[in-house]
Amino acid sequence: MATILTLAGDGIGPEIMTQAIEVLKVTDRKFDLGLTLESGLIGGVAVDATGEPLPEKTLEQARNADAVLLGAVGGPKWDAIERSKRPERGLLKIRSELGLFANLRVAKLYPQLANASSIKSEIISGLDLLIVRELTGGIYFGEPRGIRTLDNGEQQGYNTMVYKTSEIERIGKVAFELAQTRAKASGKPAKVCSVDKANVLEVTELWKQTMINMQQADYSDVNLSHMYADNACMQLIRDPKQFDVMVTGNMFGDILSDEAAMLTGSIGMLPSASLDEDGKGMYEPCHGSAPDIAGQDKANPLATILSVAMMLRYTFKQEQAAQAIEQAVSDVLDDGLRTLDILDSSEPGLTQVGCQQMGEAVLAKL
Amino acid sequence: MATILTLAGDGIGPEIMTQAIEVLKVTDRKFDLGLTLESGLIGGVAVDATGEPLPEKTLEQARNADAVLLGAVGGPKWDAIERSKRPERGLLKIRSELGLFANLRVAKLYPQLANASSIKSEIISGLDLLIVRELTGGIYFGEPRGIRTLDNGEQQGYNTMVYKTSEIERIGKVAFELAQTRAKASGKPAKVCSVDKANVLEVTELWKQTMINMQQADYSDVNLSHMYADNACMQLIRDPKQFDVMVTGNMFGDILSDEAAMLTGSIGMLPSASLDEDGKGMYEPCHGSAPDIAGQDKANPLATILSVAMMLRYTFKQEQAAQAIEQAVSDVLDDGLRTLDILDSSEPGLTQVGCQQMGEAVLAKL
Ligand SMILES: CC(C)[C@H](C(=O)O)[C@@H](O)C(=O)O
Ligand SMILES: CC(C)[C@H](C(=O)O)[C@@H](O)C(=O)O
Repeated sequence: MATILTLAGDGIGPEIMTQAIEVLKVTDRKFDLGLTLESGLIGGVAVDATGEPLPEKTLEQARNADAVLLGAVGGPKWDAIERSKRPERGLLKIRSELGLFANLRVAKLYPQLANASSIKSEIISGLDLLIVRELTGGIYFGEPRGIRTLDNGEQQGYNTMVYKTSEIERIGKVAFELAQTRAKASGKPAKVCSVDKANVLEVTELWKQTMINMQQADYSDVNLSHMYADNACMQLIRDPKQFDVMVTGNMFGDILSDEAAMLTGSIGMLPSASLDEDGKGMYEPCHGSAPDIAGQDKANPLATILSVAMMLRYTFKQEQAAQAIEQAVSDVLDDGLRTLDILDSSEPGLTQVGCQQMGEAVLAKL
Repeated sequence: MATILTLAGDGIGPEIMTQAIEVLKVTDRKFDLGLTLESGLIGGVAVDATGEPLPEKTLEQARNADAVLLGAVGGPKWDAIERSKRPERGLLKIRSELGLFANLRVAKLYPQLANASSIKSEIISGLDLLIVRELTGGIYFGEPRGIRTLDNGEQQGYNTMVYKTSEIERIGKVAFELAQTRAKASGKPAKVCSVDKANVLEVTELWKQTMINMQQADYSDVNLSHMYADNACMQLIRDPKQFDVMVTGNMFGDILSDEAAMLTGSIGMLPSASLDEDGKGMYEPCHGSAPDIAGQDKANPLATILSVAMMLRYTFKQEQAAQAIEQAVSDVLDDGLRTLDILDSSEPGLTQVGCQQMGEAVLAKL
């Protein structure tokens, strides 16, 4: 018996979650996984209901669950409220409280969607890149932070980017080991590129040195390279296939993982996992809450459905069930079904579908 | 009489500088500008000669000059030396000591080089985007900073991201006014997109609010929008032409300006200006010192030559001379001359040339 907490959140969150839950239920029955589903509140809807973006009750539910499936949080409705109550704070707090320090984001090109990218197809065909982002440290959580009034009356904003060796080591370990696993599966050499700005920031100098030390001590089979964040951002456009696993801190990871996702042209397809030290995790689509299309049955549920697959793989070690979902998604793409975000109107033979129809099509394949 | 200090620096710096100096001399004669040229040391060569990446003498020369033309700094040779002596520190110090807070980087697509980009041509054709990066503040210069040993024996690295209202206002002013100038020239509405991470970082919340206040008070004719850094990084790939002027802090600006440059596929073509409050400036190519091809006559001198054009425009208000250089560069591209970095081997009728030949071709056009 395992419990999964679903947190639909805001914007398109509820619609995509409805479809993902159906997929989860069918997979549960088909593979006899013995899952129990529970739901809770996070983000703007939680603020509206309880005054807090992450109510104590939700945190309690999340602690007791074996895994969390999240939709999306945030929207203009809550833009003006006090900083500590914003929907995003709920997301940051649940990451931190659950110790979900390892964020895995895959940028994978679906061959069926190759045209959706703004990058030339020869540059990205076959792209399958994993970004390992540190998620509970760095400038996102560093203290001191705030806005103060200076003696001369003007204001000053400040944040602190901070990492200690043990934090770097634990995320480094995840990256090196995933590179080893991926190398085993692909037959190619294991490669990790660590991204820093060590020529300017001392905190990332420690990052770089720690990665070097780890590689020398424990991962001599992994090819470790280093790249400055600005250059990494360029290289992702110039030649993304030079990378296999990239590892970086919270801030650079936020930027680079979004960039990598956009390379595929279909951010509506990309799932992510945020794991703690025991492999317990929170799973969510890489995209946001898209308030502009919320409630219109236009959203793409596939990233959330693929997040379910990631959950079955990483937290529940159900590789077969994970692959079944991934295959079903690939099959509906083969059938030419497309939500608006992945529809290429110049391509013949495609059928535009809504969020619900897309979910049902995946179910039918399962 | 005006004095220009040339700082060739490391790697390909000397080669590209030689060509740019020739262009500067010819333009000086042709337009009767009355320029005096002086040279100085910065970066690794300065470390080798004096022990310091920015010797006191160079700083003195720079303070006395009306403008500085820089090649590039850094290289593996100086990677292992003590942090405070690294070549990059010389660059950061000269920016800071001269108060060059406004860094302007143009990402412009040369139609002759449209194929060099990894982005589909319909996405980038006609791209002409200006990134205004704050250059003397933020996490690059914030204190406290360093690496310390914690009580439990492990190490901790830390940096401080900090901005005060007056710093944000002075870079905001540059961005708003450049947007106005560009709008006048293009006949399109003036647009500024301010990039922050206000949903997470208080320092950028102050940034965003300050931009809003400025727009309301003084720039109601400019359309101001805001974007989170991660989203901006995606949008630059998805649809870069949605932007005209982008303004952001030192760190995000470092990343986004490199990304924008790479969109054009020809970072070897892109100049930059770093200006102080009086319009005095340092001009340099956006690319780095490329130690792998240094001394082989393979480098592209055009970004440095175009930096000369920017210098004539911004510091010396010699629009005609600036345009003459830009036209000469465009003409040699029309003639099919290409250095290795911008050579598309699938395109017929192109001639590969070295750094010197490229420089001479520009001179001939002038
Ligand atoms: C919503 C925001 C706080 C969040 C982040 O910056 O981490 C998002 O951009 C992400 O990447 O999950
Ligand atoms: C060399 C380095 C210190 C510098 C920076 O980070 O500012 C460079 O990347 C740049 O953008 O000019």
